[in-house]
Amino acid sequence: MKSFKTQMEAARAGHPTDEMKRVASDEGMEIPVLMDRMAHGEIVIPKNRVHNIRPIGIGNGLRTKVNANIGSSTDRLDTGVEFKKARVAVECGADAVMDLSTGGDVAAIRKTVMEAAPVCFGTVPIYQAAVEVILKRGDLNRMDPDGLFRVIEEQAGQGVDFITVHCGVTLESVERMNRQGRLLDIVSRGGSFLVSWMLENGKENPLYEQFDRLLDIARAYDVTLSLGDGMRPGCLADATDRAQIQELILLGELTQRAWERDVQVLIEGPGHVPLNQIGTNIQLQKKICSNAPFYVLGPLVTDVAPGYDHITSAIGGALAGAAGADFLCYVTPGEHLRIPTPEDVREGVIAARIAAHAADLAKGVPGAWDWDRRISKARKDMDWDSQIRLAIDPERAQAYRDSVRVRQDHACSMCGDFCAIRIVEKALEKHP
Amino acid sequence: MKSFKTQMEAARAGHPTDEMKRVASDEGMEIPVLMDRMAHGEIVIPKNRVHNIRPIGIGNGLRTKVNANIGSSTDRLDTGVEFKKARVAVECGADAVMDLSTGGDVAAIRKTVMEAAPVCFGTVPIYQAAVEVILKRGDLNRMDPDGLFRVIEEQAGQGVDFITVHCGVTLESVERMNRQGRLLDIVSRGGSFLVSWMLENGKENPLYEQFDRLLDIARAYDVTLSLGDGMRPGCLADATDRAQIQELILLGELTQRAWERDVQVLIEGPGHVPLNQIGTNIQLQKKICSNAPFYVLGPLVTDVAPGYDHITSAIGGALAGAAGADFLCYVTPGEHLRIPTPEDVREGVIAARIAAHAADLAKGVPGAWDWDRRISKARKDMDWDSQIRLAIDPERAQAYRDSVRVRQDHACSMCGDFCAIRIVEKALEKHP
Repeated sequence: MKSFKTQMEAARAGHPTDEMKRVASDEGMEIPVLMDRMAHGEIVIPKNRVHNIRPIGIGNGLRTKVNANIGSSTDRLDTGVEFKKARVAVECGADAVMDLSTGGDVAAIRKTVMEAAPVCFGTVPIYQAAVEVILKRGDLNRMDPDGLFRVIEEQAGQGVDFITVHCGVTLESVERMNRQGRLLDIVSRGGSFLVSWMLENGKENPLYEQFDRLLDIARAYDVTLSLGDGMRPGCLADATDRAQIQELILLGELTQRAWERDVQVLIEGPGHVPLNQIGTNIQLQKKICSNAPFYVLGPLVTDVAPGYDHITSAIGGALAGAAGADFLCYVTPGEHLRIPTPEDVREGVIAARIAAHAADLAKGVPGAWDWDRRISKARKDMDWDSQIRLAIDPERAQAYRDSVRVRQDHACSMCGDFCAIRIVEKALEKHP
Repeated sequence: MKSFKTQMEAARAGHPTDEMKRVASDEGMEIPVLMDRMAHGEIVIPKNRVHNIRPIGIGNGLRTKVNANIGSSTDRLDTGVEFKKARVAVECGADAVMDLSTGGDVAAIRKTVMEAAPVCFGTVPIYQAAVEVILKRGDLNRMDPDGLFRVIEEQAGQGVDFITVHCGVTLESVERMNRQGRLLDIVSRGGSFLVSWMLENGKENPLYEQFDRLLDIARAYDVTLSLGDGMRPGCLADATDRAQIQELILLGELTQRAWERDVQVLIEGPGHVPLNQIGTNIQLQKKICSNAPFYVLGPLVTDVAPGYDHITSAIGGALAGAAGADFLCYVTPGEHLRIPTPEDVREGVIAARIAAHAADLAKGVPGAWDWDRRISKARKDMDWDSQIRLAIDPERAQAYRDSVRVRQDHACSMCGDFCAIRIVEKALEKHP
């Protein structure tokens, strides 16, 4: 990829990069198909030029990917814990990890996390910018736009593969939100920083106003822009409202501008969405943003289950994925209640992977059905070793099986003597 | 309800029973609407004439209900554990409990469970019949049809509200299954008992052949017949195949015959179904069975997640409920691996309730949205007491919150200093 700045530029020039070859091979997609979709922005390979990882592709026709958010808060800032969470996320099969640290030495934590999780890696640069300005000037609203861009450039130089930038939080979309009247105005942290800064300083969002500056950095390192949804609904009642859709329209326009510079783009989406609005949300996003890959944060299909939001989001994520979403951000059981523990990370990643795989079965992604056929065959054969090995979390499956005493080697640990499979097998053998 | 045998008969005669009044009031449905739907079989009130419980309604326009299966196996037959599981199920909000015991003194366990769980109560009578014949004659296949009907009558007399009867497992549907060729022939335990018996004895399923005898008992006690799906797919590859649909057609015919005798009917459904076939399954069932309430067992949207099947089934259950399924049978994390523990019961019930509620939001069931609005308002107000109280599992939510030290009374236990809600609130107050 000597003469090409970005994967998109290479795809458009008809030059297959090593990353494309790797992704095509991993996904069972023909290289020309992959390149055509990358040229049109429907598939991205979020990989910074200076980050040495096995690349993944995200988008139309590929396996639905899963991201795990980790990171410190001002109340919890133990680098060792973040290291552990990053390791757990990768061990459980997360395709990407984002570090959202806001507490302690966020640059040091980021370095640790990147070492612990050698996978596709993302950040939200405004977090570091906010933490720094509060330390230096005591007030978020005294943030200097140049400081924000300096942080973005610093992170790009360190090899960050994709960054969330809330470019669609503009004076216009805030005004639309106020006219709309929401139950829970803004729940995006990055969005809230920007709204506070904009209102206090009476100025437009620098990430919107200086979008070309952002593109310069993204293009230089091939950082994929994950256009954030600062206006995402924070509860079901606010879903699919005018503020959310206004922001989406702006993101669609910015996608077009990014593509003109061969910069790769992901679109972030809700959030909290009732089940019967999920299909509409995906279709709207794909249409308004010209089929850019869609990165959903959940969505949670109800607000009433704190402590179980890995499940509320697995429901929404599966449905979103089946409808065309390409990248699922996990949600942990502790969402709304606590910064995730390593065990929360495990629960969150597995739940999101279940949702992603259920979506891949529905979408007919190559290879997805084979996994289910193999484990079902093992179930039929009472082949417990294969059942455990093929389970999405073999360790958990083994623990459940080990928790019961099994009288025979191949006996069913669930049904005891009355195993439907064996009874019918015996009957059919005798009476073919 | 002096002169009426069943709730359906009373509804058809235009006589509102106390049960109907209670259900109409609980659900916010006008009594004439409820009665009209009951008269047409679209809603059932499964309540045995001799069982003293608060009645629930299941069907078109009502809140989606949740059932928890408990019961012993030949390997696990501790009455105390079953008592505890029944209690946990009710405490966690299960609307109904089924006792599927096959180990130990199943009649005694049933009595214990019915006392522990004073809610709508179901069984699968062929389990007891099979256990008895094996004890007495050493072979399931030596079961006497009269013995089976004797068990059904005994259980009806004890106040069982609904019974699963696999009437659609016939010589015809078994033949169709064999012609089809399945990966996992039959995974329904009751179905397997019948198939074995039928093939060994060369006779038709007595529950099909003597369906009128079944109707006599059901009518006498107003036991709701839950027409079982013995042919349900046991893996995604077998979903929506000819064997499954053949059985559904038979169940549709039997539904019509039951309704001619004013006997209430539920239809049981799959099972293991890929996400994109769930809507089709619900529509088929509703059409073929003339809008009888649909009771789904899951469905699980992937086979690969033993240890997490409460999640795979919450995804399928939510989607099924939104598409029109009325009654969700929970699935526990241990499904395929072990008989559920009390903790598994808790996880299973809450996951199914999340699915049911997500469906109710999508269907617009009266009152469903109010719950989400109230908890979201509490979230906005940082009113932690109300958030916990309104959570679907307040105990779990409290435990998560308690697991982190919170510096201020109302501080967010998740985000520390950087709370999006507070930052925006402050900014909007200052710059209205």
